[in-house]
Order: sequence, then structure tokens, then C-alpha cells
Amino acid sequence: MKDIFVNDLAAFDEERLFDGFFLVLTKQQRTTKQNKPYLVLSLADKTGQIEGRAWELGDPRIAKDFARGDLVKVRGSVGRFDDRCQVKIDQLRKALDGEADIKDMLPSTTHDIGELWRRLEAAVESVGNPHLKRLLTTMLSDPALAKAYREAPAARQLHHAWLGGLLEHVVSLLGLADRVAAHYPLLDRDLLVTGVILHDIGKVHELTWETGFDYSVEGVLLGHIQMGVDLVEKTISGLPDFPERLRTLLLHMILSHHGKLEFGSPKLPMIPEALALNFVDDFDAKMQSMASEFEKSAREGKAADELTGKVWALDQRQLLNTRAWLGTDTQGK
Amino acid sequence: MKDIFVNDLAAFDEERLFDGFFLVLTKQQRTTKQNKPYLVLSLADKTGQIEGRAWELGDPRIAKDFARGDLVKVRGSVGRFDDRCQVKIDQLRKALDGEADIKDMLPSTTHDIGELWRRLEAAVESVGNPHLKRLLTTMLSDPALAKAYREAPAARQLHHAWLGGLLEHVVSLLGLADRVAAHYPLLDRDLLVTGVILHDIGKVHELTWETGFDYSVEGVLLGHIQMGVDLVEKTISGLPDFPERLRTLLLHMILSHHGKLEFGSPKLPMIPEALALNFVDDFDAKMQSMASEFEKSAREGKAADELTGKVWALDQRQLLNTRAWLGTDTQGK
Amino acid sequence: MKDIFVNDLAAFDEERLFDGFFLVLTKQQRTTKQNKPYLVLSLADKTGQIEGRAWELGDPRIAKDFARGDLVKVRGSVGRFDDRCQVKIDQLRKALDGEADIKDMLPSTTHDIGELWRRLEAAVESVGNPHLKRLLTTMLSDPALAKAYREAPAARQLHHAWLGGLLEHVVSLLGLADRVAAHYPLLDRDLLVTGVILHDIGKVHELTWETGFDYSVEGVLLGHIQMGVDLVEKTISGLPDFPERLRTLLLHMILSHHGKLEFGSPKLPMIPEALALNFVDDFDAKMQSMASEFEKSAREGKAADELTGKVWALDQRQLLNTRAWLGTDTQGK
Amino acid sequence: MKDIFVNDLAAFDEERLFDGFFLVLTKQQRTTKQNKPYLVLSLADKTGQIEGRAWELGDPRIAKDFARGDLVKVRGSVGRFDDRCQVKIDQLRKALDGEADIKDMLPSTTHDIGELWRRLEAAVESVGNPHLKRLLTTMLSDPALAKAYREAPAARQLHHAWLGGLLEHVVSLLGLADRVAAHYPLLDRDLLVTGVILHDIGKVHELTWETGFDYSVEGVLLGHIQMGVDLVEKTISGLPDFPERLRTLLLHMILSHHGKLEFGSPKLPMIPEALALNFVDDFDAKMQSMASEFEKSAREGKAADELTGKVWALDQRQLLNTRAWLGTDTQGK
Amino acid sequence: MKDIFVNDLAAFDEERLFDGFFLVLTKQQRTTKQNKPYLVLSLADKTGQIEGRAWELGDPRIAKDFARGDLVKVRGSVGRFDDRCQVKIDQLRKALDGEADIKDMLPSTTHDIGELWRRLEAAVESVGNPHLKRLLTTMLSDPALAKAYREAPAARQLHHAWLGGLLEHVVSLLGLADRVAAHYPLLDRDLLVTGVILHDIGKVHELTWETGFDYSVEGVLLGHIQMGVDLVEKTISGLPDFPERLRTLLLHMILSHHGKLEFGSPKLPMIPEALALNFVDDFDAKMQSMASEFEKSAREGKAADELTGKVWALDQRQLLNTRAWLGTDTQGK
Amino acid sequence: MKDIFVNDLAAFDEERLFDGFFLVLTKQQRTTKQNKPYLVLSLADKTGQIEGRAWELGDPRIAKDFARGDLVKVRGSVGRFDDRCQVKIDQLRKALDGEADIKDMLPSTTHDIGELWRRLEAAVESVGNPHLKRLLTTMLSDPALAKAYREAPAARQLHHAWLGGLLEHVVSLLGLADRVAAHYPLLDRDLLVTGVILHDIGKVHELTWETGFDYSVEGVLLGHIQMGVDLVEKTISGLPDFPERLRTLLLHMILSHHGKLEFGSPKLPMIPEALALNFVDDFDAKMQSMASEFEKSAREGKAADELTGKVWALDQRQLLNTRAWLGTDTQGK
Repeated sequence: MKDIFVNDLAAFDEERLFDGFFLVLTKQQRTTKQNKPYLVLSLADKTGQIEGRAWELGDPRIAKDFARGDLVKVRGSVGRFDDRCQVKIDQLRKALDGEADIKDMLPSTTHDIGELWRRLEAAVESVGNPHLKRLLTTMLSDPALAKAYREAPAARQLHHAWLGGLLEHVVSLLGLADRVAAHYPLLDRDLLVTGVILHDIGKVHELTWETGFDYSVEGVLLGHIQMGVDLVEKTISGLPDFPERLRTLLLHMILSHHGKLEFGSPKLPMIPEALALNFVDDFDAKMQSMASEFEKSAREGKAADELTGKVWALDQRQLLNTRAWLGTDTQGK
Repeated sequence: MKDIFVNDLAAFDEERLFDGFFLVLTKQQRTTKQNKPYLVLSLADKTGQIEGRAWELGDPRIAKDFARGDLVKVRGSVGRFDDRCQVKIDQLRKALDGEADIKDMLPSTTHDIGELWRRLEAAVESVGNPHLKRLLTTMLSDPALAKAYREAPAARQLHHAWLGGLLEHVVSLLGLADRVAAHYPLLDRDLLVTGVILHDIGKVHELTWETGFDYSVEGVLLGHIQMGVDLVEKTISGLPDFPERLRTLLLHMILSHHGKLEFGSPKLPMIPEALALNFVDDFDAKMQSMASEFEKSAREGKAADELTGKVWALDQRQLLNTRAWLGTDTQGK
Repeated sequence: MKDIFVNDLAAFDEERLFDGFFLVLTKQQRTTKQNKPYLVLSLADKTGQIEGRAWELGDPRIAKDFARGDLVKVRGSVGRFDDRCQVKIDQLRKALDGEADIKDMLPSTTHDIGELWRRLEAAVESVGNPHLKRLLTTMLSDPALAKAYREAPAARQLHHAWLGGLLEHVVSLLGLADRVAAHYPLLDRDLLVTGVILHDIGKVHELTWETGFDYSVEGVLLGHIQMGVDLVEKTISGLPDFPERLRTLLLHMILSHHGKLEFGSPKLPMIPEALALNFVDDFDAKMQSMASEFEKSAREGKAADELTGKVWALDQRQLLNTRAWLGTDTQGK
Repeated sequence: MKDIFVNDLAAFDEERLFDGFFLVLTKQQRTTKQNKPYLVLSLADKTGQIEGRAWELGDPRIAKDFARGDLVKVRGSVGRFDDRCQVKIDQLRKALDGEADIKDMLPSTTHDIGELWRRLEAAVESVGNPHLKRLLTTMLSDPALAKAYREAPAARQLHHAWLGGLLEHVVSLLGLADRVAAHYPLLDRDLLVTGVILHDIGKVHELTWETGFDYSVEGVLLGHIQMGVDLVEKTISGLPDFPERLRTLLLHMILSHHGKLEFGSPKLPMIPEALALNFVDDFDAKMQSMASEFEKSAREGKAADELTGKVWALDQRQLLNTRAWLGTDTQGK
Repeated sequence: MKDIFVNDLAAFDEERLFDGFFLVLTKQQRTTKQNKPYLVLSLADKTGQIEGRAWELGDPRIAKDFARGDLVKVRGSVGRFDDRCQVKIDQLRKALDGEADIKDMLPSTTHDIGELWRRLEAAVESVGNPHLKRLLTTMLSDPALAKAYREAPAARQLHHAWLGGLLEHVVSLLGLADRVAAHYPLLDRDLLVTGVILHDIGKVHELTWETGFDYSVEGVLLGHIQMGVDLVEKTISGLPDFPERLRTLLLHMILSHHGKLEFGSPKLPMIPEALALNFVDDFDAKMQSMASEFEKSAREGKAADELTGKVWALDQRQLLNTRAWLGTDTQGK
Repeated sequence: MKDIFVNDLAAFDEERLFDGFFLVLTKQQRTTKQNKPYLVLSLADKTGQIEGRAWELGDPRIAKDFARGDLVKVRGSVGRFDDRCQVKIDQLRKALDGEADIKDMLPSTTHDIGELWRRLEAAVESVGNPHLKRLLTTMLSDPALAKAYREAPAARQLHHAWLGGLLEHVVSLLGLADRVAAHYPLLDRDLLVTGVILHDIGKVHELTWETGFDYSVEGVLLGHIQMGVDLVEKTISGLPDFPERLRTLLLHMILSHHGKLEFGSPKLPMIPEALALNFVDDFDAKMQSMASEFEKSAREGKAADELTGKVWALDQRQLLNTRAWLGTDTQGK
């Protein structure tokens, strides 16, 4: 079991020797000025990443038979250089089967996956239209697809970039979509809920998350919109009597959910449910980005009443945490 | 009392003589090929507008002492030309005081203004923060401002372009904002609700609606964002102890609520409540545009399963009415 | 058989009575100043369209049981008004089965469809890769698809907007693509040829051409790119052993062939063949637009050395016909 | 008194020990490879900035009780590393009251502030319209506002980014505006002059310059345009009989002076004086940027006939100094 | 001599028969409902244009041997239709040599061409640099070029679209450029003055103004920037010892004077004089557009305190005449 | 003769002493922590560049009398630091006349220049139009121009950035243009071929390549489009009877060949040959960029089935090598 995490190491004494398991993100061999080779690794777990250096490559306790993506066991101590921490590696070997769990190595949702999944299932259950409900249950009862849906991040590095991020984002959207549908009688709730659950399902093929978050080659060439349309399309083909027009509307919602051609949607939203899907998706992503920035600022010890730096995902604007700046919640005061 | 309305006239026989009151939107004198002068008027009431022509200008029963913006009493009959109706005017005079009501002459919300106002007041009542609540009650208890707030359209010709449109739009937003605030703990509900109520208040000065909907010269030069900031600013100056930072955030929300510099907001939303205000405002306006287009299509007798024409307010896209196209509600079926 | 065509009518005497078959594009009832109803029709055949008016609706020889999209037989004569011609309709009835052919009613390619099809088949034959060849032969041997491929226009109103336009455009592209592939060893000719043949195949579902050229509702909601991907995708699913990577590249080519996100391609071309497909497609369409404009100018009797008007499909630029302006071909002179 | 300046240090021998006063811009503690902590400071005065390092933190003569924004007295010597100079700090303490002047620590206009102010006052004196003159004298006789107007930089890092930069920019504009008004009879000189003096007055609140140049939080949220409108607005409210229309035009000029929505002006210039204000402001800023770039090139020892690097403030274009390149003034030669 | 002008005709009685000379801008033959042919002409002189109709084509006093671009003598009377005036033509023939002057037929500067030319010569005289002065005198002493420079409009339909408009625009710029050069010591006045005089000289070839204002085919293909560079280039080639670098800078100023690539300048201004030329040119054109709009509003009888319509040449903004709106000049009041 | 090349050095032992000739791209003096000065040079030849350091500046065998752009002879050995190689310089002096050839020092086309030139001459020979042929032969028989045309790179750092790159690019275009002209009868082959040969000829003045690739000052101020027009223009002036219209079309092709105003073409292509020139030029450059990226990936040892990094010259898209990814050529397999 993993008991030493990257974000604990900063507090370690330089004398303290520890053993820990990590994921190898990158591996490089370099040479000192004295022309002596040494290893530079990027070691990661779900709490962050840290550089590790192994100086004594001649030492048989420093394994050479490992690669990017492997789990390794490291014995070493923490050194500091220009205020950054570094692991000085004394021993290193590949982890044995069962010794370490890849799940501990990648950032993961702070929510309970089981609970999120139950909320997703409850949403499916609430769909009244029998065709849409059958489509959803068919897709989510596919074991491989359901497993991927639970694990996939929502992005490589923007909002919800962690294991379970896709599911977490969808569950948040479901709550918002429910409230929005209740406000506008024009909206067909069943269609909106189905669109929310399926709009990003192509990400299970577009992204890879086994050895760090990345795009698959197919994902770069086709994109999650096309991949999602394909998945839904194929499932519908197998369902008897699925209404043709309902299929068209659902595919239209997936195609148009980015809201603009220049964001990769080949069509603009043309039905109320597609417009609503685009709005809740965009708004939830931006609210999540704001929340992440405020957490990051707090983590970095910025004063509560400071603006954040310029945020790339929000057009380079700076952000301010209302409550922190006011020094209090305005409510009930 | 007004009992003959523009949208009744299409069904009138050509023989039927009628008396009715209308608002004069435009007045022009033209000449026949035989060089005889005649009058061409645009006559309007809240149900629409129709062209009227008076041919016998020598007849003393055709008054000349009226202008654009006047209410007039007309006696005439309906003619048809190329499928368009026209009023053939036999007699015309300015309406006497009390004979006609300007309220009948301009399109107006289909909701009850009193009921909308009560919902606005309830929202004010629900604000917990004492400073924000005092600001709102101070502004809305100003009789001139409150009267204008009840009457103002939300726009000259886009969404909610009717008397009471501003209030109707705000009340719809309040419902949506409440639901959104309940979904995101990050949002300060009091601040968001206050922003919703005040974000467009400058429109009471930017627009004029006494004689048709238009912009005031000051409105064109300064805009409703600046005019709204000015109104709120001046009220806050008169309130003792209004917190400086709270004032800054509220003004920021008004300034940034269009969401982009190219839409006339000099600042992007930088706090969660400003982001939320921008989203609910934009989304509600677009949903209202969709609903209006579907109503217009139905009025024009388009088949239920047709796309609308290209909609200017929605980037020239065409729209489709989900339920009409599916032939049924997908829910519960 | 149709022997009187719209573009012959301008030369007719007003006294000459004729019988002809036309397609009804629009049908409207209007009323004279004297309140007498009359019919205004837009009559079309492949050479153009002309307005027709039937004044004596009481006459039993003027049928009423026809609609937009019907073929009709008309007896009448040509009148002139402000230099525009008009058909004065004396008699009108729906065409009987077999009396008239819809093919005569819509503009059509000036090339021989059979010959174009043979050149398409030759191109398929020339494909060496067995998977791609099987895909193409499978699709083109589907009778409904092959029929639609022969008939479909390439657009509603831009380049190649005539029956057979899609096929004509593809055959021109095949010749160009062959030359380009021969010039760049980097290009895989088989893949490029397959992409050329299939890139616009979704247009057979996006467009309708039975009663004038238009978009289907599904076409507006999904677009020909998605519809084409879907057709190809479904065919590949039925082929045993079609290589997964080859499928990805082919779908990528269809997705990216518009070359830019703002032109509706959700992906930019990322492989040499996709880049080449985008270029030949864009260039051929622009060359065809140029040629059409020069023909139009000649038809309208513009002097050979004049610039055309501003051309919408070419960013509002004006065009000049090199040879006409030089008064001679520069070659060999 | 300050007698050692940053830009003198490059010429110092490494043996020379000196005492000097500096402003601390940043303060960081780092650790050597041998894990020994040391201090890295950014030390600034009005002539530039330099890195300082204090290695012996155990030495009681190295104070620890100072922070970013403090004035400090430093004893040390100059070292060189990779051609960059560095201060090796032997002793360091906070400056005592009166020992050093913050004015020496920030870049400042090379013009005489008193003289600039007199030219501003002369411009106010020259305004004939009594309302505008009273507005200007009221604002500039407010001691706090006048002090800030004399001190404020015109920007954080673009044109006129130095103490007194705002005043210097305005005085240059006044000269240019006078010449332009004399050329165009259409322009109301009084209104233009008033607009020039007040257009950027919001910068006194948007920017802070006590401890380096930065934006205030309120400045980022509201912007200097809104802050300036607010200042002018409030002053006008206190003036009896200020004409309403004159107020509207003046506020319009401030709102629109950036000339484009995407530059943060919520309105485009719609009156001749607003158009003129936008032009002189934009042109003077660009001329100043050019002059600064040429001075910078000269300082860096670039050859007179070389192009500058790509200039960020001028759309990444390179610049060329006409006279330097021609080797002579073209005039009279 | 021409004594009847288009803008006098509106006041004529219908009975009044008059003789007048006009330029034929367009000529069209149409047919009445009774199938009788008649002529529709667009007749113009420098004060405007008016439609003329000749009904009795059989009458030998209606000539047929004239074309677009001819000067004609017309006898007729004024009719009115829908408030628009029209000339009812009784007799028409081509003007004899010397009877009418094309100069009376096109709008022309209200300034004295001779006086404008003297001011241009004075500016040339004031240039101190001998190379630049010789270049200017060489070009302006070319009789054909000088004649065209005096006559050319500055545009087909935007600012200064009248005979002498180019010269008038340049003379206004010279005054402004002088003032700007006096304000900025960085500017080389000689170079700026030369740039002002030559920047638009290509318009003498780009535009044609013999028979209405239009572009030449060469002008559309090459543009006045290239044509101006070519003219200057060729003249310099004939001057001994013209410094190479001075030539480069001057050509750079002509190339870059539109200020942006998307406005047709292939280079951005990179020297101070090019930047200044771009600004004075742009500003003078916009001030002229404003003045024209105010004059047009006054001519159309708009109230002094109304906004203009949306102005195409100024990004669709509306304009307001400061002094008219204030009801007085703010100066000295 | 040069026998040691930069890309050989990586394989050298640290003990191996070698002598080699290099071009000095940059020369900097720095100081060690111990304040000892040393030299840092960027040494280049046609295969790449490498850093060189000379530590013993006191040693008389380390010359000081050389500068950027000089050829030098170096004696030294290879060291390694952080996986990067470095030359440790023991001796250094300027190369003597004839010892080294600048041609060895800059990257150069891999094609045979003589062969490329023969293909260019063959293309000239194939031009039938006598005026165009005479223009081409006149220009290419100018010895200085012909020499520059053989040597010039096509760009500083994008496609074909090597000696002979311009010629190589043009010869590739000639092949493509021939094929395109054969496909479209609308195209005048002679004009297109002439445009291809001359479109970039201004680059011989815009770029400099004696001491590394750079822009001349004149090149930055005027650009190669203007410089090319000027060269062609001047040659045509010297040819008797060159048709005016042919000259206009040719200059139009050069002006418009970038295809868009924002790419620096002051005119859009308006004739078929200009459109074709823009297409073949753009397409060939992009195909070449693709090929270069694939070669670079292979050189860097990327796996065959990986995407490239984001490519700046292709809008930051990633690229995939079709054949490498498929593991085989699809053709014939």
C-alpha cells in the first residue's frame, strides 16, 4: 500500500530515508561536467510530481530495466535546490505485481465514484421516453464502456483533468440541467438529460489515462465529437424501432454542443435542448475553472484578497474570489 | 375603449365600415400619377401595424393637425392589394383626451405586470445582505424609477421588445438565477440576485417607448450599461455605510454582464457572480428568441416540422421546434 | 416531350399561343385593386424560370388542384412588362403521368452522365489497395446510392448547382488529384482517390432535388460531412477485415476536407492526403465559379474586356477573363 | 541623499565597496547545493534594477525584518556572472525615516513636473466655456486629486510608464489637440481640450505607484474609463447649472476615447471631438513608443542603421529611425 | 452655358417647359403595359441626378444616336410621382461641340482649384531637401500628370468623391501635417510633406472620371498604391544621384499609408513619417466624412439635435453634430 | 577542404582532437564565477550548429581578431553537458583565403543546382508567347540576377530555408503548374508558367544569405512582392512592344500571389492564372512543410506511428505520416 505521497515530501528532513512507489512519467540519462552519467526521472503520484536523480548508476541496486509508464519502488531522501525539492535516489526497482496500484498514481476525483455512478443511474431511471431510456441503459450496461466512463478524465489539462473527471462533470451537469429544464417549459427534459449523459462519451476513446493523460492518435484525427456520434449511432442501429427523428436530434445535440464552429462543432445548436446543453456545459466548465483557480491560489498561499494570475482557460482574464475579498459571505449578514 | 384591433382587420369584409383608435407611427404625403396629393400613414396598436391611405384630402373630415406619435380616431374600411390589407380612410381626427389609451397601442407583455412586480418584490425581500437589500428597496421605491421599470421594453427590436419586457425578462432571470445559485455553493446568491435586478436598469433611460420603441440620444451616446452604473452609483452614494468593496463588485457585474468587449462590456466577468449573470442573461435572451420564432412560425402557418428562416439574433442559424417535429413530447411516451 | 423551354419564350410574339410543360416552384393567390383574385406562379424548367399569371380563375380550364412541386401543362402567351417577360395563362392543368419528365425541369450537367459514371468506375478500378477498392465497389453498387450519386447537385446555389453536379465535380477532381498525386511521392494515390470519391457523398442525403434544390431537415441539423462519415462508417462495418487505421484515416479525410473549423470541418487536415483533398476540392470549386461567372457575363452580353460584378462565392472580388481581355490566347502567339 | 544609482554599478570594480539605498521589489530565500540558505533580492531605483544576493544569513548585519516595498540600505560590492552584474550584499538594513526618498526609486519623467503643471493650468485658463472651465478648476484644485495627477504614470509598462507620465502625456496631447482644433473649424476646441485633460483621469485610481507600478484590484474590476467617468460625474453633480447635454458629450468622450469596443471603450466616437480625442491619444502614444524604442536601441548600442526588434506595443512590427538611417536630417541638406 | 441644374428642378411648376444640358449616366429601353416602348435615362450634372422618361419614341425630335457618357440637350418639364421628381422629355439630342462642358456635369470641389494648386506649390517650395524637392517639381511639372492631379476625385463614392477631391484632400493634409511635424521633433518634415503629396498619386490612374466616377480595369487589378509606387519609382530612376535610402523610405511610406494589411497596405508603417502619414490621412478622411454627413442631414431637413443614420464609412456608427445639439458653440459662451 | 562537419561531432570521443572550419554565427564574451573571462561562440556549417567555448583567452593561439560572419579554423575536442555536445576550443584563427568555402557553411538544397537550373531553362523554352519568353530570357540572362536566383533561400526559417531553396521551390511549382494547366483549359499556361518563375524573384533582394539567413533593411521596409514587381517592371520597360495588358496581368499575379490581404498581398487573385498561382504556391509550401516535419521526426527518432509536435507553419496542427502509420503503402498491397 502506498503511504508516502509526493506532497508529503516537502516536509521531510534531508536525513530521513524513505521507501515509496511512484509512476515514471519521463526518464532521461544525462552526464555531469565530469562526464559521469546519471538518471533524471519525473516521478508522479496522484498528489503531484517530483524530480528524482540517481547518481550512482554503477550501483546494482539502481535498476535499468524500466521505462516511461512503469510503477517503481524507490528508496531515497529529499534534497533541496533553489527552493525546489528533489529525490536523491539510492535504490530503485520496478514494482512487483500487486505492490502498487496505478489508481494511486494519477489525480482522481475527490468524489466517491460509486456515489457519482448511482446518481447517473438515477438520472437514467428518471427518463420517461422509453427509446431514450433503452439507449442509455444499453450503453451504460456495456461493461467496457461503463468502466471507461467511470475512469476517464474530462480533459487532458483543462477543467476536470483527473480520473473520474468525465463522470463528475456529467453528474454536475445533470443537476444543473434538471433545474434549467424545470424553468423552461419549452425544453424536453428527457432529451436534455440524454444529451448531457452522452455529449462527451467520445472522450473515452479520445483520451488515454493509463500512463498519464494524453490523446490517442485516433482521438487527435477524429475528435471526441465524432467518436461520440459513432458510439451512439452504432448503439441506436442495434435498437429496434428507435425513431429516426429522435436519432437525428440526439446526434445534432452531440455535434453542436461546443456551440461554435471555431470550437470544433460542425453545426450550431438549432433546437432548444441543444442550446441548453451548450450553455450548461460551457458554464459548468467555467465555474469549475474558477473554483480550481481559487483553490490553487489558496494552496500557493496567495492573500485572500488578491486577484489570481491571468487564466488561460478564461481568455487570460484575472479572477477574484468574491467571499474572500469581502471577508465574509454577504448572505445572512 | 378600444375594441377594434389591427389583427382583427384581415377578416373584415370590404363593405364593413368601422371606427377605431390607432397610434400614428409615420405620416407621409404623396401624389398620384394624376398629381393629386394623398396621405399614407402607418397605423399601429399593440397587435401590429397596418398601412392607411386617405385619398380625399380636401374633405374637411380628414384632419391635418396631427403628427407622428399622436393617437387618432379613424373611420374607414379594409381594402386588399397583392394580399396585403390596407385601411381606406374616410374620416380621421386626433383622439380626445381619455378616448384612447397609449397602453393599447404598443405591444405589451402577456403577463400581469402586478404579478411580475410582486415576484420582483419577493426576490428583494429574500435578499439577506442588509446593504444590498437597502439598495434595492431604495431604488425600487423611487416612484419614477419604479414606474419606468414596470413599463420599459427590454430592447427596441430583439428579445422582449414590448412594454413590460424588461420586468418580464428580469423575473424570468430571477427564477433561473435562483436555481443556478442553489446548484453552485461558490455563488453568493444575494449578490447574484441583486445583479439580476439591476443589470439592465439603465434601459429605463436608454430606451423611449412613448411613441414607439426607440433609443434616446443620450442612450446612443452613453449606453444602458453606463446609465445603469450611474443610477446605482448615485443611489449608493446616498446610503450610509455601504461597503466600498461590495459597491465595486456590484458595479463590476453591471459593467461586465455582456460578457465580451465586442458586445459593449468594457470588462470581462472576473467574479463567479458576474460570470453567472452573463450566462443566465445570455441564455434567457436566446431561449426567448427561440420561443418567439416558433410562435411567429405558427402564426404564419408554417408546417410544424419545418425549420424557421435564418434568425438574425441567433447568428443567422435556422431553428427547429423539437416537439412539433417529433409530433409529440418525448416525455412519458 | 418538352419542346418549349423557358429561355425560348423571350423571342415569342405576343400573339403566339403556345403549350408547354413546367415545374411549379411557387404558387400564390393575389387580388387586383378591383378585389378580383388571380394566380401568380413561378414556372421553371432546366433553362430558367418565368412568372406566370392566370387572371380568370372562374374559368374551369384553370385547374386549382395543383401544388408546389407539381408538373403542369400550360397554354398561354408571352407578355412584357418593364422589359421582363411574363406568361399570360389561358389554360392550366396538372401533367398526366408520362407527359412530362422532371429531368427536363431542373438544370442539369451539360456532360453525359453515363460517360461521367464510366470515368468514376475507371477510377475505382485503378485503386490498388484491395480494402479501399472493396469499400468503393460496395458503396457504388448499392442501387439507391448509385442513383442518388448520379443525380445529386453539388450545392443548392453555389458551384455545380445542377443535377449531376456532384458527379461532375468529383470526376473533375479525380483528374486533378491524379496529376497532383503523380507530382508528390509523399501522397498515397489510392487513399487520395478514395477520399475524392467519398468526400461529399453525404450530399445525397443533405440535399433534395425532386422539386427544386433544397436542404433536407436532417441535412441542416447534421450536415453532409457527418452524413458522409456515417454512410462510409456503416459500409466499413459490414466489410470483414477492413484495417482499423485505414478506416480512421479515411474518416479523417472526410471530416477535414473543408480545411478550416469555421467552414464546418471539426478537424484540420493532418495527413498529406487530407491536405491534398482540401486543396483540390477548394481549387476546383473556385475555378468552376470563375468559369460560371465568365459564361454568365457572356450570356448577359457584357463586353469581353469588362470585369465581372462582385462575386459572392469569391469574397466579393471582381474577376477578369484573361483571354477575352488580351483579345487572344497568349500561347503560341 | 541617494548618490549611487543602479545604472552606475556596471562600471564598478569588484573590489569597490559601496553603500546605497534601494527599493526592494521582490525577496526570496533559496538554498545552495550544500543546502545553505541565502537571500535573493530584486533591488531597484529610478535608473533600473539589479539582483542582490546575501550569502551569510547568519551574520547579524543582514537584517531579516524587511519586505517587498521597503526601502533598504545596502553595503556590498559588484560581481559579474555571464556578463550580468549582481550585488554581493555584506550588510543590509531598512532605511531610516528621511534617509531615502521613494521618488528616487521609481522611474520618473525627465520633464519638470512644475513646468508641466503650469502648462496644464494655462490650458485650463484658455478654455472659454464657463461650465467646462469651472469643472476643470474644481477638479484640479482638489489637493488629493491634483497630487495624484502629478504623480501617476500613464501605464504600468507601455507608453509613459513613469512617475509624472500621465501629466506628461496630457501636456503633449494638449499641444497636439490645439494644432488639430485650429485646422478643423468643425471642432469645438473647449470641449476637445477638456476631454484631453480628463480622458485618463481614472488612472489615478486604476494604477498604484507607491511600491512599483501595478493595478489596484478596483482598477482591474472597473477600469480607468469607468473610474474617470465616475470622478467627472460626481464633480458635475456638485456644480450648479452644468448643462445636461454638455455633461453627456463629455462623458461620451471619456467612454469612447479608446476608439474600439475591443480596446475597452463601450461606445465608438460619435461626435467630432470624440473622434479627435481618440486620434491624438492613439497617435501620441504610438509616437512615444517609437521614440522610446529608438532610445532603447541607442542605449543598447545597436548600430544606427539597424531595425529595432519586434515591438509588442506596435503589433510586433520592427521600426527604423529615419534620421539615423539616412545618416543625416533630410531637411535643409 | 449651363443655366438649369438638377437641384433647381424640384421647384419647377409642372407647366414650366425648360431646356437643359445633362450627362447620360444610364440609358434603358422599357415597355408599357400596353407594350409601347419608352426610354428611361439617368440624367446628371454636378448638383445631382434625376430620372428622365421619353414616351414618344416615334417623334423624330427624340434622338436615338446617343449613349452612356454622352452630353445631351433636353427639352421637357418636371413631373412628380410618389414625391419623387422626374423629367418628362419632349425633345432630346446630343449636345454640339462647345455647347456644354463636362465640368458642369460632375460634382466638383467647392474650393478654387487654382488656389489649391498654389498651396500645393507653396508646400513643394517649402521642402528643404534638394532631392525630394526635385522629385516633386519633376512630377508636378509633367503636364498630363499635373492636369490629372487637379481633376481626379479622391474616391469613387466615399470621402472627397468629386472632381478636385484628390487635390483638396492633399491640401487639407498638408496643413495638418505641418502642424503635426511642428509638434514632434522626431518627424522629418520634408519627408512627411513629400509623402503627403505623393501618397495617393496612383489614383490618377486607378480612377476614371470622364463619364462618371469609376475604377479602370488596371486600377482594380493593381490598385493605386502600386500605381503610385510605380510613378514615383520611374521618376526617381530618371533623377541623377537620388539617394537609394531616401527612395526606399519614400516608397515605404506610400506602401504603408493605409496602416493595416487588411486595408490593402502590404507593409505596416515602420518609420515615424509613415506612421504620421497614415494617421493624418485616416483622420482627415474621417473628419471629412463627418462633415459630409452633417451637411447631408441638414440638406434633408433633419432636426439639428438628431443623430444621423448609420454611416457606412464609419463602421455603421451614428453621428451627432456637437454644436447643433448644444444649440450653441461652447466656446466663449 | 572541409572534412569535419557539425553533425559528425556527436560521435567523437572526448579524447579525440580535431581541426575544422566553421562559420561564426554569434560571438560573446562571458565571465566565470571566479570572474575569469571566456568566449562563447555559435559555430555553424551546413549540417547544423554547435556551441564552442574557449577558456584560455590569454593563450596567443586563441585569436581575437574575428567577428560574426567570419570563417574560422578551430582545433579542439568534444565535451558533453546535459546530453548536449560542446566544442572545447584549444586553438582558433580566421580561415585563410581559399582554405574554406562559405558554401559548406550554410544549409543547401539536396538537389543539384545545375540540374534545377536546366529544368528552369526548359520551362522558359516551353513558353510560346514571344513577349513572355523574351521577358524571362532577358531576366535570367542577367548574370547577377541569375547567380542570386540560384543561391537564394526561399525563406529565412520556414519552408525551403536553405541555399537554392528558391530555385528548388520554383522548379517543384513548375511541375505542378504544368499538370494543373493541362487539367483546366481556362488557364493560359504561358502566363501561369511565367508567373511561377517570377512570383518570388523579389526574394533575391529581400533576403541576405552571406552570413546566415536574414532580411535586408530594404526587404523589411518594402517586401519581396514590391521588390519583385519593381524588377519585372524595370525589365519590361526596356523591352520594345511588350503589350500593356500583358504587363498588367503579370504584375497582378505577383501582387496577388499570397492570396489574402492579411498575408501581405494588396490585391486578391482576380484572373484564373493568379488564382492558380496562389494555389500551387500555397499547396507546395505546405506539402514541403509536411515532408520536413516527417524527416525531422525521423531524425529525432520518434516512433513511426506518432504524431508530430504542433507545427507553427501549419496553424499549430499536429501531423501524421500516413505510410509510416499504416506500416505500409496502401497502394498495390
